[in-house]
Amino acid sequence: MLQLSAGSRLRVSPFHSAALAAGVTHVTVYNHMLMPTAFGDPEAEYWRLINGVSLWDVAVERQVEISGPDAGACVQRLCARDLTNCEIGKGKYVPICDHRGTLINDPVLLRLEDDRYWLSIADADLLLWARAVAGEQKMDVSIFEPDVSPLAIQGPKAEDVVAAVCGDWVRDLKLFWFKPAEINGIPVIVARSGWSKQGGFEIYLQDGARGQELWNMVWQAGEDYDIGPGGPNAIERVESGLLSYGADTDDHTNPFECGMGRYVSTDTDADYIGKSALKTVADEGPSRQRVGIFVDGDRLQPSDRKWTIIQDGEPVGFAGSVVYSPRLERNIGVAQVSTPTSEIGTQLNIYTPDGLRAAEVTTLPFL
Amino acid sequence: MLQLSAGSRLRVSPFHSAALAAGVTHVTVYNHMLMPTAFGDPEAEYWRLINGVSLWDVAVERQVEISGPDAGACVQRLCARDLTNCEIGKGKYVPICDHRGTLINDPVLLRLEDDRYWLSIADADLLLWARAVAGEQKMDVSIFEPDVSPLAIQGPKAEDVVAAVCGDWVRDLKLFWFKPAEINGIPVIVARSGWSKQGGFEIYLQDGARGQELWNMVWQAGEDYDIGPGGPNAIERVESGLLSYGADTDDHTNPFECGMGRYVSTDTDADYIGKSALKTVADEGPSRQRVGIFVDGDRLQPSDRKWTIIQDGEPVGFAGSVVYSPRLERNIGVAQVSTPTSEIGTQLNIYTPDGLRAAEVTTLPFL
Repeated sequence: MLQLSAGSRLRVSPFHSAALAAGVTHVTVYNHMLMPTAFGDPEAEYWRLINGVSLWDVAVERQVEISGPDAGACVQRLCARDLTNCEIGKGKYVPICDHRGTLINDPVLLRLEDDRYWLSIADADLLLWARAVAGEQKMDVSIFEPDVSPLAIQGPKAEDVVAAVCGDWVRDLKLFWFKPAEINGIPVIVARSGWSKQGGFEIYLQDGARGQELWNMVWQAGEDYDIGPGGPNAIERVESGLLSYGADTDDHTNPFECGMGRYVSTDTDADYIGKSALKTVADEGPSRQRVGIFVDGDRLQPSDRKWTIIQDGEPVGFAGSVVYSPRLERNIGVAQVSTPTSEIGTQLNIYTPDGLRAAEVTTLPFL
Repeated sequence: MLQLSAGSRLRVSPFHSAALAAGVTHVTVYNHMLMPTAFGDPEAEYWRLINGVSLWDVAVERQVEISGPDAGACVQRLCARDLTNCEIGKGKYVPICDHRGTLINDPVLLRLEDDRYWLSIADADLLLWARAVAGEQKMDVSIFEPDVSPLAIQGPKAEDVVAAVCGDWVRDLKLFWFKPAEINGIPVIVARSGWSKQGGFEIYLQDGARGQELWNMVWQAGEDYDIGPGGPNAIERVESGLLSYGADTDDHTNPFECGMGRYVSTDTDADYIGKSALKTVADEGPSRQRVGIFVDGDRLQPSDRKWTIIQDGEPVGFAGSVVYSPRLERNIGVAQVSTPTSEIGTQLNIYTPDGLRAAEVTTLPFL
């Protein structure tokens, strides 16, 4: 029950007052910014996402804008995925790696115009990385964090709510596609995306002064659908097998080790950072794999650190997140284990705060 | 009263269990890691630092180790300070800037061996920045985060406590100097340093498995001096005029605008990042200045965001931190204001959650 100290080093979102009014009880810190995670009734918040519609302040998904004459070249140097066919209006999930081929971010790339891109980033200072690369390569680009703050509407009823706010055209938006729009004069980008597998949208607010207004409009439109507050859900994301960069990865994880191998282009002329290291991994096979695990025994509290997995007394990996799944009625987790250990059905043990527990390797996603 | 959500993306320190046992109530997140900030009695914690001795888990001061044949060249490329005379054993406060000359970190640089350095960093992913630069410049270095976690002992009685733990040799250690040592077989670096102006030491633990042990030894040695727990103190640091990167700076702040101008070497052959931009600022003078401000009226709660400062109805800067000083018995703050506004005695106004308040520019430090 640790409280978060106030301090201006940690930024607040344009939706912060709205989240406070909605009764936020818990936050996390992500990209130097507060993100609401819970509103006092974890069970209701979980089922609302599964069966209804949930409103999330995900302004912490900061954008790194790269624009200018060398923007395309810069983005391609950063991304381990061939961007030759990167279309305006279609988001792309991209691995970004360092020179060792280690994953340093897993953003969604949005191409807004020919020479203008956003990287919608995970929790790490990709702004610094991109600026260092562009600066040292003397690229003619401008790289900055624009005034953009995503608001997520997630769950099976999200489409109805977003259609009520934006118009029925959003129903035709395909997964990962996005479109600029105005809502009551507020400039936004509407995307069919979000960090859940329950369907939904993210509305990228482009005017930080109008967060409360946008939140209120979505809330009012959602009342008919029993909308309520929530945040990226630790349980649902494990059930769905979504990657949490930093939780499920360590300082050596490459994309092939965390389920992002299919987004790495090794057979391309593009000279991106980490390419030769990634080619070697692709040729030799990764030494670790991302898997699901079932963990035996009583209901576990969501893990607050990486739990060590052992086999025959030796450490063979870690589980970045273990939760109790209400739908499966058992403890499940996402883990990164050494390749020989990753075979489905392998029996392992895992150190939990409740002691050593038996675990079994399974496939992802769980649901 | 927001609680921090558990999650393995946020790391815990080797001293975390010790801090929990000591009754930590509040934490912040810094370098993706939890840092204890309060233990239930803010007033006692403040006076303990001023008059006695306080024990702080500052493991969040992560180290970026740069070693190998090109280590010296790499560190010099990163730092806007001439390192020609950088001695082994003497820490140096260094501005690190991007290509625009904007401050991106204000670490202490420790040269451990000829080709081995640590940057003891503020809250930003300098590891990414350094790796990008070294990688793009094809430097022959190894850059990583070693298993190093500083524990700070701060306050006028700190020297007695650290001498009791390490031996009387620490009394001869000059400010910013450091020395490797062993405490009961635990490998450490002992430095006379710390983020307060009350004097003290930082013991850099080099074995993450032995945090509790080190904490206990310091605690026991400190009992004669009435040691107690604490953390970097928001009030004392404002009184002392210490810089908090991220709170007192924004995405355009250069070292001359935040009191670090004297550490920038513009007249050097070293070709560091940001040099030409910084030369221009040095020649033309910075457009903003770091100042102290007195804020009128009743006691204010410590600010949780940057408060806007206005003059004649126009915004002229921001205050990154405003606190009530128990020793001065008034509200004080650190601010960054446009240069014409920075003259001592200038009358301003500042937006606080309690409404607009009158403020006056003064010098730093306050005490």
